[in-house]
Amino acid sequence: MSNSESLRPSGRAANQLRQVKITKDFTKHAEGSVLIEFGDTQVICNASVEERVPPWLRGQGQGWVTSEYGMLPRSTGSRMRREATAGKQSGRTQEIQRLIGRSLRAAVDLKKLGERTIHVDCDVIQADGGTRTASITGGYVALSMAIEKLLADGLLSESPMVQQVASISVGVYQGTPVLDLDYAEDSTAETDMNLVMTDSGHFIEVQGTAEGAPYSMDELQAMLALGQKGIGELTQMQRDALGA
Amino acid sequence: MSNSESLRPSGRAANQLRQVKITKDFTKHAEGSVLIEFGDTQVICNASVEERVPPWLRGQGQGWVTSEYGMLPRSTGSRMRREATAGKQSGRTQEIQRLIGRSLRAAVDLKKLGERTIHVDCDVIQADGGTRTASITGGYVALSMAIEKLLADGLLSESPMVQQVASISVGVYQGTPVLDLDYAEDSTAETDMNLVMTDSGHFIEVQGTAEGAPYSMDELQAMLALGQKGIGELTQMQRDALGA
Amino acid sequence: MSNSESLRPSGRAANQLRQVKITKDFTKHAEGSVLIEFGDTQVICNASVEERVPPWLRGQGQGWVTSEYGMLPRSTGSRMRREATAGKQSGRTQEIQRLIGRSLRAAVDLKKLGERTIHVDCDVIQADGGTRTASITGGYVALSMAIEKLLADGLLSESPMVQQVASISVGVYQGTPVLDLDYAEDSTAETDMNLVMTDSGHFIEVQGTAEGAPYSMDELQAMLALGQKGIGELTQMQRDALGA
Amino acid sequence: MSNSESLRPSGRAANQLRQVKITKDFTKHAEGSVLIEFGDTQVICNASVEERVPPWLRGQGQGWVTSEYGMLPRSTGSRMRREATAGKQSGRTQEIQRLIGRSLRAAVDLKKLGERTIHVDCDVIQADGGTRTASITGGYVALSMAIEKLLADGLLSESPMVQQVASISVGVYQGTPVLDLDYAEDSTAETDMNLVMTDSGHFIEVQGTAEGAPYSMDELQAMLALGQKGIGELTQMQRDALGA
Amino acid sequence: MSNSESLRPSGRAANQLRQVKITKDFTKHAEGSVLIEFGDTQVICNASVEERVPPWLRGQGQGWVTSEYGMLPRSTGSRMRREATAGKQSGRTQEIQRLIGRSLRAAVDLKKLGERTIHVDCDVIQADGGTRTASITGGYVALSMAIEKLLADGLLSESPMVQQVASISVGVYQGTPVLDLDYAEDSTAETDMNLVMTDSGHFIEVQGTAEGAPYSMDELQAMLALGQKGIGELTQMQRDALGA
Amino acid sequence: MSNSESLRPSGRAANQLRQVKITKDFTKHAEGSVLIEFGDTQVICNASVEERVPPWLRGQGQGWVTSEYGMLPRSTGSRMRREATAGKQSGRTQEIQRLIGRSLRAAVDLKKLGERTIHVDCDVIQADGGTRTASITGGYVALSMAIEKLLADGLLSESPMVQQVASISVGVYQGTPVLDLDYAEDSTAETDMNLVMTDSGHFIEVQGTAEGAPYSMDELQAMLALGQKGIGELTQMQRDALGA
Repeated sequence: MSNSESLRPSGRAANQLRQVKITKDFTKHAEGSVLIEFGDTQVICNASVEERVPPWLRGQGQGWVTSEYGMLPRSTGSRMRREATAGKQSGRTQEIQRLIGRSLRAAVDLKKLGERTIHVDCDVIQADGGTRTASITGGYVALSMAIEKLLADGLLSESPMVQQVASISVGVYQGTPVLDLDYAEDSTAETDMNLVMTDSGHFIEVQGTAEGAPYSMDELQAMLALGQKGIGELTQMQRDALGA
Repeated sequence: MSNSESLRPSGRAANQLRQVKITKDFTKHAEGSVLIEFGDTQVICNASVEERVPPWLRGQGQGWVTSEYGMLPRSTGSRMRREATAGKQSGRTQEIQRLIGRSLRAAVDLKKLGERTIHVDCDVIQADGGTRTASITGGYVALSMAIEKLLADGLLSESPMVQQVASISVGVYQGTPVLDLDYAEDSTAETDMNLVMTDSGHFIEVQGTAEGAPYSMDELQAMLALGQKGIGELTQMQRDALGA
Repeated sequence: MSNSESLRPSGRAANQLRQVKITKDFTKHAEGSVLIEFGDTQVICNASVEERVPPWLRGQGQGWVTSEYGMLPRSTGSRMRREATAGKQSGRTQEIQRLIGRSLRAAVDLKKLGERTIHVDCDVIQADGGTRTASITGGYVALSMAIEKLLADGLLSESPMVQQVASISVGVYQGTPVLDLDYAEDSTAETDMNLVMTDSGHFIEVQGTAEGAPYSMDELQAMLALGQKGIGELTQMQRDALGA
Repeated sequence: MSNSESLRPSGRAANQLRQVKITKDFTKHAEGSVLIEFGDTQVICNASVEERVPPWLRGQGQGWVTSEYGMLPRSTGSRMRREATAGKQSGRTQEIQRLIGRSLRAAVDLKKLGERTIHVDCDVIQADGGTRTASITGGYVALSMAIEKLLADGLLSESPMVQQVASISVGVYQGTPVLDLDYAEDSTAETDMNLVMTDSGHFIEVQGTAEGAPYSMDELQAMLALGQKGIGELTQMQRDALGA
Repeated sequence: MSNSESLRPSGRAANQLRQVKITKDFTKHAEGSVLIEFGDTQVICNASVEERVPPWLRGQGQGWVTSEYGMLPRSTGSRMRREATAGKQSGRTQEIQRLIGRSLRAAVDLKKLGERTIHVDCDVIQADGGTRTASITGGYVALSMAIEKLLADGLLSESPMVQQVASISVGVYQGTPVLDLDYAEDSTAETDMNLVMTDSGHFIEVQGTAEGAPYSMDELQAMLALGQKGIGELTQMQRDALGA
Repeated sequence: MSNSESLRPSGRAANQLRQVKITKDFTKHAEGSVLIEFGDTQVICNASVEERVPPWLRGQGQGWVTSEYGMLPRSTGSRMRREATAGKQSGRTQEIQRLIGRSLRAAVDLKKLGERTIHVDCDVIQADGGTRTASITGGYVALSMAIEKLLADGLLSESPMVQQVASISVGVYQGTPVLDLDYAEDSTAETDMNLVMTDSGHFIEVQGTAEGAPYSMDELQAMLALGQKGIGELTQMQRDALGA
């Protein structure tokens, strides 16, 4: 399908990612720091190493990887209430940061990490759809950078990374399965599915929600195929960014 | 497969549901009240009608369906902290009740419901795995009862129910795809997937998480097939319970 | 007084309890579990043993008994807000659970209990007046069951139970002192008094509130006499339930 | 009984109140302001008039009386945590302020008060036992002063006060029923009972708790008699303070 | 300037303090207790000694001085919401108590204090402007009393007090720089500046805010000079109160 | 003073600002968006227009300008706890955002703004000292951009901006008064003073705190002079950025 025929607001082909850009060392303090952009979506992913584990893991000879997610109040089209002012994180925020943490833990052998925690903070500077998938994809790079630093500093002798983890959204927009929904598509799509996958094409997480009409088995299969293609491209970009 | 060959702790066949029981009118005040049991998992689902909608929906000529989820502190093997005492709902609780609400809204034409809210409270009395899928499946029955009462009372002249909604878990346990995981399976399964589907076999929600190793496309397809079978049985039980 | 002359909405005699039913082992996980019913009031009382004491009691060679109380949102005629969602327990809830805990501690020699805590969770499934008195009366049975389990498991060699504890409400309804008020009475009674007493007829707690006009010394004495009668019957039912 | 024979730490007779002092106009802003002292217990009671009622009472043509209670962090022997810092009021605080509000409402015909609220803030400057009973007894005076001001300002044409309300503690200390426990007695008493009564000797609230052994009917009767005596003296002091 | 010429609502000269009164031992439990009055502003300052330090200071061989600030709900012209009820301290309260704590720490050599904390609670009984400066000035006296008690009790062998600390407000009222603003001035002043200074005339804190038009360098200099005069008088009163 | 003689860790002269950079339109959604950098300190300032005012201002024919402040968890050398997770903003955060809001309101004639609110969100991406002064200086530019947009869109016919507002820190570092402290200086400075001033050299806010020894009048005067110089340079940069 040529761009000129595209039904997508952005003019993209149905199976085309937005322009993805990964900028390393975006801030100076974090052990791993990345700005990841999916088109106009921009997320800072900072990985911080802490030399201890949560209380419930102490003394078990393993590490932990966890994540927190936030959005600047005006990262969105109209200003949202700041969660620190509201006094709590929304259900949506908690759901997203639980997903990011779970996904990134799949990339790491926690036993090999040793008794330390890596916090991956994903803060959305500008939102245009797909902030959680960008957070996972960029968070993996920040996490890898922090691990590289631990290796370079001699705090780890062997890498605990076991596989690459990336994430992408797929959906059904105006009846057509499409890859990597932006906000214009996401806000009106009938179905929105987030996939978290490995570089070998296995699944870590599948989360598909019918926003409008329920979707059929055929639509599900089409979305899974689009996702596999996108994940292949993203894991290549991660390797390029990490110089691997 | 005979029970004697089963690898499942309960002796069930891989594609066999636990014994499911739906008791209507379990409590007397709610417009719709159900105790649903999946084996040892017991959930009270109470549907309450409120003759107004949340502030952000006012004046739009439509209704709302929402859900809250809770567990009695000793519904589980060891006592959990009461969320009312802790001063907040956990991320897990919020994630579950958002899922239940989203799923049940798919059963209803909110325009036809009129400017009223139906609250579906799902409270787990005893937990043995699958509390969220039991909540959705039982919540649908309680919701339907509340709608029937609105019709009987003349507050609605036409039913806003558009399709049946039920939910079941599937997973990979010791390398084998299985249907309807109980706690003994759930706590050690490699993969846990919750499906929310309609009586016509379409998908409302697919949420599959690799707890251990990522799962392959083949495993994903096997789990989807098991889920379709289970949903077919559950929607029949819902119809039986409702006398439809 | 015959029922036909009764002024009570339920037709009961002034000194007559509602039908009280105690179902043991209502849920399977708790060390002691009871469903207690006073007419349409239904409360699940679960006693959980924890092998440690609160920080302020550590190292003092004694145990602790404490209670938490909750109501399902639709246990009542119109739905109440869930306290876990509101982010705190109401003053009423806190007042009730402090009363239950204080009352049940009177049943136990905490020194003999050893350094462990018994949590008694009282959750109201259906409310029709008298939920706090039902909680205490049923909570005593659940607590006794947990103690029996500690004895059977050899964790205690001697029972720390020192006396039975039960509770009942009395009040002045339409000018007449009555026993065990149901919701129809409670909501319009001039005076509502809760008594917590022992099997030997002594007082642990007397809480009497004039909702309308203040009550006279004569009315107070009449209520105390009714309460003594009711407590005698309830402590017998507790013994029957426990097989003592 | 002469003081030399007294078993009470203060040397008081069993039926003797501490020295009670009521200072009017203790602060200048409140419509009614009182410092009440029961020996070393000192409580500021400020009554504030607000020309509206809580949302749930609006448009019903009646007023409201409510109370809040607090303790300065170092009103007690060792410093307590400030509740504003802790982020919530304790269960004890909520229980006390609910009691004060309920008691003071018994003094007022809320219909005659009109659509306004009187807030009675009781803040303990120095604590030596009996702060809740001092709050009620002093709060009544502050409330009466605020009502007098409304009458003087022509905002009310007829007094809504219907009866006097005062409160006192009684207890069993070292086996002897005593009146008006101070901290030395309260902290070791077997039984502690708070009475709220009217000037005509009727009961608004009876709250008696066995801290040690349960108390007998005889002890209960002895405490009630002591309380009646004390309330008689306190209501006289209230009248003296108000110049009535 | 004679009072008859004064533009100030109180008739004071521009460089004249309100009547300041320091009453020691205002309450009986605290190690240091003071009621300080600046005209109608009344603040209770209680210093409490705790024989430990906050977790982040443990094992460092030094002590800590901290402060909390509160206002009785009706210390002000119209009733404010109680912060314990609201569930949090306002930004203003936190800002003030951080200022008080920082200021009082300047009076103490924390190394010489030893591993203990002194809490200075400043509670406003009646407010008429200048509550934070009264809190610091009175808090210093309460703190000194607590130190004297530690010396008298032999818990300290050498005083850790290194200098006196006092505080006063200055401002520009109707175009004229004035000393010690009361509420009538404070609420309409163009500029309000709080100074915290030592007995040797050095600055611990300068906080000047233009409420209306920005202030010039000349006005700033005039306010600083007024402040120096006022601090000189206040430190003398502190010495008089302490008998130093 | 040449750089080679400087005692400052950065090699700057005592009266030299860090390199300041103002990037407009840093994010795309906000009506005014700026990234401001003071050396390694980076703050995103987003101004959002809301067409209504807070409840307490309604119907008074004026607008409002307010600010919120936040730091990314890893904007600092070691990771800080996320305030949205902690459930509240720290006292420091509240103090800073109150200062920013107060300062920016001095730039605007709120009557001319009309009944609308401008929210200025200042989020620190990377911290190296001086985040609050950078927030005010950059916030002014973002605020001006939002006003320009209101003028361009015809929502305002006349600019409500009355003066420029900028802010800078000064301090005493190793005995020498210096301008614009970075983190290395700020963390060990004896005195830290933040000045908020107008383009005409008047004061909006002076906040000077002795972290170590109190500072003398001479040191205060030296710091004020340095601040005046710095503000002159910053207001020029603001005009350059705005093309004014």
